[in-house]
Amino acid sequence: MADQDERPPAGVEPPALSVLRWDELPEGPVLVLLDQTRLPSEEAELVCPDVPALVRAIQTLAVRGAPLLGIAGAYGVALAAARGDDVEEAAGLLAGARPTAVNLAYGARRAEAAYRAAGERGADPQRAAQAALAEARALHREDAEASTRMARYGLALLDELLPGGGHRLLTHCNTGALVSGGEGTAFAVALAAHREGRLSRLWVDETRPLLQGARLTAYEAARNGMPYRLLTDNAAGSLFAAGKVDAVLIGADRIAADGSVANKVGSYPLAVLAKYHHVPFIVVAPTTTVDLDTTDGASITVEQRGGNEVTEFTNPQGGVAGGEAAGVAVAPAGTVAYNPAFDVTPPELVTAIVTEEGAVSPVTGAGLAELCARSSQVTIG
Amino acid sequence: MADQDERPPAGVEPPALSVLRWDELPEGPVLVLLDQTRLPSEEAELVCPDVPALVRAIQTLAVRGAPLLGIAGAYGVALAAARGDDVEEAAGLLAGARPTAVNLAYGARRAEAAYRAAGERGADPQRAAQAALAEARALHREDAEASTRMARYGLALLDELLPGGGHRLLTHCNTGALVSGGEGTAFAVALAAHREGRLSRLWVDETRPLLQGARLTAYEAARNGMPYRLLTDNAAGSLFAAGKVDAVLIGADRIAADGSVANKVGSYPLAVLAKYHHVPFIVVAPTTTVDLDTTDGASITVEQRGGNEVTEFTNPQGGVAGGEAAGVAVAPAGTVAYNPAFDVTPPELVTAIVTEEGAVSPVTGAGLAELCARSSQVTIG
Repeated sequence: MADQDERPPAGVEPPALSVLRWDELPEGPVLVLLDQTRLPSEEAELVCPDVPALVRAIQTLAVRGAPLLGIAGAYGVALAAARGDDVEEAAGLLAGARPTAVNLAYGARRAEAAYRAAGERGADPQRAAQAALAEARALHREDAEASTRMARYGLALLDELLPGGGHRLLTHCNTGALVSGGEGTAFAVALAAHREGRLSRLWVDETRPLLQGARLTAYEAARNGMPYRLLTDNAAGSLFAAGKVDAVLIGADRIAADGSVANKVGSYPLAVLAKYHHVPFIVVAPTTTVDLDTTDGASITVEQRGGNEVTEFTNPQGGVAGGEAAGVAVAPAGTVAYNPAFDVTPPELVTAIVTEEGAVSPVTGAGLAELCARSSQVTIG
Repeated sequence: MADQDERPPAGVEPPALSVLRWDELPEGPVLVLLDQTRLPSEEAELVCPDVPALVRAIQTLAVRGAPLLGIAGAYGVALAAARGDDVEEAAGLLAGARPTAVNLAYGARRAEAAYRAAGERGADPQRAAQAALAEARALHREDAEASTRMARYGLALLDELLPGGGHRLLTHCNTGALVSGGEGTAFAVALAAHREGRLSRLWVDETRPLLQGARLTAYEAARNGMPYRLLTDNAAGSLFAAGKVDAVLIGADRIAADGSVANKVGSYPLAVLAKYHHVPFIVVAPTTTVDLDTTDGASITVEQRGGNEVTEFTNPQGGVAGGEAAGVAVAPAGTVAYNPAFDVTPPELVTAIVTEEGAVSPVTGAGLAELCARSSQVTIG
């Protein structure tokens, strides 16, 4: 298969995606999001003037991806503070908008702590709101830096595990610039390999039910001129069997203290396939994704989402039949679906966890705790 | 989860599905198919007056499923013969309409052989055509009987492997009355368990890209009042991890002489998951699916289908945008997909193969050859 057509003109990098920004409008501050439910066909912005609007954007997945959710949570608290809304209530609403992504609560709580600390130091609400915004901006910047460092550590690990180069990497869900203040987590590693000329194939799982792989990862891969191929999630098995996958790279929504990884549903079967075929299974996530208070995989709450995500097809571009939420039934009326958003991969199936502080391999609780202790991330009480 | 709502009123069996029938119209004979691309929302008939129309129906999956394809192939040859078309050419066209399902070629060749044998015995073309039709009807009847026997052997095996009852079975693709002259293969076993009160859950993989599980298996399960739940293919992993699958039951499109099983893409990853979790992985298929001329899995030709099945969503009810083949893009323009229709599971991952002649377990070439020798299926030279 010739990939020449997919390669970008030499030296041309696409402009960075603007996935989330703070804006000061005459009528007050807003959070402007790239509406990810409308990709890839439309790059539409969604303006959130308050926390309820942001919570809706989070729940409908207009904004998504663990690190970006953390950033959104922090800006959301800053937004509540700037509007003079109840900051504690806002942080609680945001932290609980989706149960599995620990970063969301982390970001919200961190901005809330900055707001509270400023107040305790005697700042008036307006100054305290500025402190919350400054904290959100710091988290945003730290996340971009973390992306760069994860990409570097991840690529070094790949080169060590696969010294031959010509990497054929398989990824699931979306973990690029659309989930991050920078270039992402797992996807950033594949992109770094591509820029170094060491990526020969990126296999992109479509990632049912919401097709984040087809809609978002393929979009980012195409944008960056990467040699990608899209596949249904269940076609990955035959790629492993044919020896066409050199490594699996995924992100994480929450990592427990023992190294258990909660990530998009479909990650665990890939881990089992990788183990069976002796292929490295690599998780790339910032240390903010590690939740040392969650002792093990069994303690992770897995979000169950509505069955209509499975029983209906909803046009990403706003409803097949024209209406906002209209879907086309693909199953008989009355069908009940089992629709967990995530699954949990135990540490023994994970070859390495790559963070912005380096990689841990084999994955142990002690190794993970050491990386987290090394992290410059702010600890909130 | 309460399933009371899904149970049918006591003693009520739904009417049998008419998935394929021969009809004599004033203008000549036709093959009438239940158009499976329009299920579950519509039970529409598709009338095929000649072999090219039937080949189109096979290629668009209006008629599908290994055993039913065999029956369709045989009736197709009978149709060509009745019309006075070139029978040899018709058999060739039908046998090659889809490359993986061995039954298709078997059915076409068997009716062709009956036609030829009648001619050699001195029958005129009209009498020879009647012989071809009689052969198609015999195959149809044999397949219905094979379904009944597979269901009986399969249920006995389940009861032996899982003596506790309350079976929680996972299935992939569609293997019921819609693929068969009778009640099907793997699905027929689950249905038999349900009728005996020993099915506590049928997990139905949606089966991307064409969603035969969501559209067809859920339809058949609902019709029969079975306690089913629909899931995305990649959600099966967490069911195994949670210990909620007692056995996997699938059909087959072709079984090689060594026991390698080609079946709908996504079967192999289920086999690996089943192995990893010590869950029986059971293949149910008539002996006509065994191709002793194909020595092993590597020799099986796997059909690669168009990438648009993955990159676009096409409304099963005739095109989202109103047009026949219209689809909604779910991936960026220019995306190339890897879209194999099948994958191959090696015998060491298969706990048992259940045929109408009994089960073979462990799966060995010798055991399989013995079952085939016992079969009353007509051998064609």
